[in-house]
Amino acid sequence: MQSDVQLLGTQVNLLWVVLGAAMVVFMQAGFALVETGFTRAKHAAHVVSTNFAIFGLGFIGFFLIGFPLAFGGFSYSAFGMDNAVGEALLGSGNWIFLFKGGWAMSGDGITPAVLGFFLYMVAFMDTVATIPTGSMAERWKWSSFTIWGVFCGAIYYPLFAAWTWGGGWLAKTWDTMSLGAGYVDFAGSGVVHAVGGVAALAGAIVLGPRIGKFGADGKPRAIPGHHIPMAMLGTFILLFGWFGFNAASTFAATDVQFATVAANTAIAAAFGSIAAMVYITKRTGKPDPGMMVNGMLAGLVAITAPCAFVAPWAAAVIGILAAILAIEAVFFIERKMKLDDPVGAIAVHGVNGIFGVLAVGIFSNGSYGAGWNGSASKGVEGIIKGDWGQLGAQALGVAVILLVIFPIAYGFFTIQNKVTKGGIRSAEEDEINGLDVPEMGVKAYPEFT
Amino acid sequence: MQSDVQLLGTQVNLLWVVLGAAMVVFMQAGFALVETGFTRAKHAAHVVSTNFAIFGLGFIGFFLIGFPLAFGGFSYSAFGMDNAVGEALLGSGNWIFLFKGGWAMSGDGITPAVLGFFLYMVAFMDTVATIPTGSMAERWKWSSFTIWGVFCGAIYYPLFAAWTWGGGWLAKTWDTMSLGAGYVDFAGSGVVHAVGGVAALAGAIVLGPRIGKFGADGKPRAIPGHHIPMAMLGTFILLFGWFGFNAASTFAATDVQFATVAANTAIAAAFGSIAAMVYITKRTGKPDPGMMVNGMLAGLVAITAPCAFVAPWAAAVIGILAAILAIEAVFFIERKMKLDDPVGAIAVHGVNGIFGVLAVGIFSNGSYGAGWNGSASKGVEGIIKGDWGQLGAQALGVAVILLVIFPIAYGFFTIQNKVTKGGIRSAEEDEINGLDVPEMGVKAYPEFT
Amino acid sequence: MQSDVQLLGTQVNLLWVVLGAAMVVFMQAGFALVETGFTRAKHAAHVVSTNFAIFGLGFIGFFLIGFPLAFGGFSYSAFGMDNAVGEALLGSGNWIFLFKGGWAMSGDGITPAVLGFFLYMVAFMDTVATIPTGSMAERWKWSSFTIWGVFCGAIYYPLFAAWTWGGGWLAKTWDTMSLGAGYVDFAGSGVVHAVGGVAALAGAIVLGPRIGKFGADGKPRAIPGHHIPMAMLGTFILLFGWFGFNAASTFAATDVQFATVAANTAIAAAFGSIAAMVYITKRTGKPDPGMMVNGMLAGLVAITAPCAFVAPWAAAVIGILAAILAIEAVFFIERKMKLDDPVGAIAVHGVNGIFGVLAVGIFSNGSYGAGWNGSASKGVEGIIKGDWGQLGAQALGVAVILLVIFPIAYGFFTIQNKVTKGGIRSAEEDEINGLDVPEMGVKAYPEFT
Repeated sequence: MQSDVQLLGTQVNLLWVVLGAAMVVFMQAGFALVETGFTRAKHAAHVVSTNFAIFGLGFIGFFLIGFPLAFGGFSYSAFGMDNAVGEALLGSGNWIFLFKGGWAMSGDGITPAVLGFFLYMVAFMDTVATIPTGSMAERWKWSSFTIWGVFCGAIYYPLFAAWTWGGGWLAKTWDTMSLGAGYVDFAGSGVVHAVGGVAALAGAIVLGPRIGKFGADGKPRAIPGHHIPMAMLGTFILLFGWFGFNAASTFAATDVQFATVAANTAIAAAFGSIAAMVYITKRTGKPDPGMMVNGMLAGLVAITAPCAFVAPWAAAVIGILAAILAIEAVFFIERKMKLDDPVGAIAVHGVNGIFGVLAVGIFSNGSYGAGWNGSASKGVEGIIKGDWGQLGAQALGVAVILLVIFPIAYGFFTIQNKVTKGGIRSAEEDEINGLDVPEMGVKAYPEFT
Repeated sequence: MQSDVQLLGTQVNLLWVVLGAAMVVFMQAGFALVETGFTRAKHAAHVVSTNFAIFGLGFIGFFLIGFPLAFGGFSYSAFGMDNAVGEALLGSGNWIFLFKGGWAMSGDGITPAVLGFFLYMVAFMDTVATIPTGSMAERWKWSSFTIWGVFCGAIYYPLFAAWTWGGGWLAKTWDTMSLGAGYVDFAGSGVVHAVGGVAALAGAIVLGPRIGKFGADGKPRAIPGHHIPMAMLGTFILLFGWFGFNAASTFAATDVQFATVAANTAIAAAFGSIAAMVYITKRTGKPDPGMMVNGMLAGLVAITAPCAFVAPWAAAVIGILAAILAIEAVFFIERKMKLDDPVGAIAVHGVNGIFGVLAVGIFSNGSYGAGWNGSASKGVEGIIKGDWGQLGAQALGVAVILLVIFPIAYGFFTIQNKVTKGGIRSAEEDEINGLDVPEMGVKAYPEFT
Repeated sequence: MQSDVQLLGTQVNLLWVVLGAAMVVFMQAGFALVETGFTRAKHAAHVVSTNFAIFGLGFIGFFLIGFPLAFGGFSYSAFGMDNAVGEALLGSGNWIFLFKGGWAMSGDGITPAVLGFFLYMVAFMDTVATIPTGSMAERWKWSSFTIWGVFCGAIYYPLFAAWTWGGGWLAKTWDTMSLGAGYVDFAGSGVVHAVGGVAALAGAIVLGPRIGKFGADGKPRAIPGHHIPMAMLGTFILLFGWFGFNAASTFAATDVQFATVAANTAIAAAFGSIAAMVYITKRTGKPDPGMMVNGMLAGLVAITAPCAFVAPWAAAVIGILAAILAIEAVFFIERKMKLDDPVGAIAVHGVNGIFGVLAVGIFSNGSYGAGWNGSASKGVEGIIKGDWGQLGAQALGVAVILLVIFPIAYGFFTIQNKVTKGGIRSAEEDEINGLDVPEMGVKAYPEFT
């Protein structure tokens, strides 16, 4: 029985989760604007519409079966929640396992708090779903895209989520393999961003580059985005939403670490944007707006896993490294791998998602995360504290993303490409003329272009 | 005397109301972008400016006399608030009745909480005021428009609000006519959206269609919007704000139903957008972005009244039906009624506002709303629970909107049209060349068009 | 030792601060859109990028040394916080004084709450830093601009902040000079907006007007902004964020005055926008969108200092006066001072920041602010209550901004202009062709212009 104060605390915790969910849902607008701004006007209705429709497509898959699949075996400690706080909020576990009737939020255990938790989680899933719309932009057939959305919400995202946040085997490697506190990922550098980033990679490989991206000599050509202010507005919306993404991942206003998380998030974003400005200016002579944007986003992606476990100085270092990594990765992916990723989604979400996961094992200072995943009660510690076990758990998670999750995405797009009449890529003529009219039936800007 | 815990709960409840108010105020940006994106570039400064100015115009009318007119007889149960929670927040009733000095927020009873409540309510009123700027876009004289704004805030909106949320006769039909729990409208499918939607209908009738909308044969011609990404950004802003619109309508963080409300809101939005995509693709062959937007908005409008009373599966069904209804209504209004509604405001807010009101009487499952309107203590139940009385109360509300409120709007615009020199419609020449320069003195995009 | 209820209250207070911080950070998007929309397309990538990069530039300066410089001597009463509430949140004072190791948020006293407080404060600082990007737009060399950003965060902003909110000498004039409650500035009409506004003035003087702004006869020519909907979206984002800016400046959800503050903020915005519409229509015949925007922003700036101390009617009056003041100031600055301020930043933030500071000394009604700055325990009272002392304290603050802070900004830009090769102004050729390609390496809209 909760006291009056505990009850009020639980109510406030739920309010924080719901507010956080609203902010993460709003991030869909940010992704839409960044991806649309950094691509061409003739495809703009198509690009923005994929980012619009993905919200509902992924949502429906997750609502019907993804949520119970991911969190049916849920344990509070896999979110770092105090068990008492978690039970006060959501009740005892196993409330929604798929085969106990949890599909379509229909089981007996569906309380308001479970619905609030679902809302927060569906918004995270949609972030995964929307990442490939960036790397696959300007050449992805609409009908093929829609299937990805449902697949991502129903099956693709829930897999790795179940193994980590759902309390699955990667969460338990502290016990089974003596690796730190098991896989720790505060708000999803890995569970969300890297998982989305490897899908973006798979999709870009299967689709191939846009017509004209590589010259006859194999050298990449710049294809400038059509609307820089749009992309920067999108980035600010993402920054705003990221406070909900990271800080509300305490699932508790009563865990004041949310303030540390929020500050670290901003610190990494700030240092990331400026590090990118300095680095790209050194490399090319100009403070390229696209790279400043990607530097901030890279910092945000990379801080997402470690944000609760590191000191402010480490957040700054993570932001700086993330920005440099993003810029080098953009060049590497384009010039060495000969892949076409119109918005840098692989570099930002994939590469820096992985970096963020590893950063937990490097920079965590032991001040937070005691009992995470049900492990022994010391805080999460990285190699700066002399502990290499946590880095091992994180590296194992990265290996699973690369060796298990990436092949699933690659297999999905490859099979879909084979079984779909004409493949998953838009018709060549449509791509050249712009996807807007043939795919969507309207132009984005009928009066400007 | 409140205990310390109760006092803190009241403070948190007020915080939730104020945060919700900020989110609803932000929806003005969403309306502005949707309406501007779906109209033409030559009128863009005019359209966006009507959406900008309406905030202040309606606000001033509501501040001066609308608020005490609507809520002077206010009772907590008409918002479904527990009386003790309500009194802790706002004190005992009749704190601001117009004739007791409540105009311009000037009475003795003006506490911080009353000001917070006012802020939330003024944002709802402004949503009503801004709906006709969509259906009347591209041909509404600026000076005429400004009078509508003040009228809506001062008188038009407060009427139906007083009869329902204000505790008036429609709230009491559970007692006077034995109809369910009386008229129930959680966050305003009727009080806000349908009331705004019928004003949009009245305005579109009085103004007549845009030049060129109907050919000599009477067939409608498509007039494409000039900026699809702008409209979709606006929709995402509306989705974000809607969490404040619906979930904060508990007026209490201590009523955790806000989480159910938030989840149902998102569910209806997601299913609405995808149902519209599927339905319009079947009908026309393309996933029209405008219809996807209107599908999501229709789902949001329709779930606004029933969001606290229905199960998640019902929210999904409501979203699907709302989207189909919106699309059919758009075609019906244009092709059968020969009305010109540039952004689909009548279909989205009017038709689906009405559907939402009725949905309370159909899908409510009895789990919430005990004592609503001061009625007997069972929860609100629709015909899925075998109770037809609630549907009766809702249908009566709809009848009042159609037979009393719509004529008031129609009368207002008709009279204004007669007494205004040259009528309320812009000059033909201005409409053809674009309203921006003659009405606003500037072009929206002097360098693009 | 706090009780359970007090502890929960403290946690909720911190949540409010962090939510407020997120909203204020989001205001950067608003500034970016207003400034970009009101300038020309050929400079749009440059203008939006200055507003983007300033976030990180100012942040880094403030993170490294600005924060401890400003708030090292911090006292709760300079924010009007109850000492017990403040200590519960942030601990006892002097937690981060620069020379005690507080740089880069590295000292021993860095709790989650201090990090949350830092986040809120860094967002305020960034508002100051971004104001000159408006008045100096379209002709400011990128490399010069970046130095301003760091200087503002590290030194420029912290000075006046230390003397006021930091508990410095201007906060203590109630004691040293018997002036009211000492300098009182609830959310920063002076500390933020006027301080930023005088920097905008200094920068505009040093840079000189844009090529073509003044004819050979010395008469100003209109240079229309390229995107009105963008500017209005930005204004709505600012309005939304301002609820965090002002209302969360209670630093406490347990101080329900936040609701009064939020309502007064909206009232001033609403009346400001409509007063500007009426006034500019009388003056020029058209409801100029730019002036409506500046009217709303002027109302918001002016209410920022007095929002907690005045009645709703006074908020309306302040909004009206602010709008008229802004319009007259725009004309005066352009026609009499022959200065070129592309977006009206000096009039909106400078002139109305000063007006807001003085408005505290005029309209405060004594209902709030007892013990502010450690003064005697009556509320803050302006001359409407017969007390001229408060206006004296405010006027002294204004004098310091004009006579000490403005010269610092002017000196900074002047010296920078001398020591920088070619000065701080962009090359003439670049300005004529647009700064986007030469400074940023990309065009904002390669397909539209």
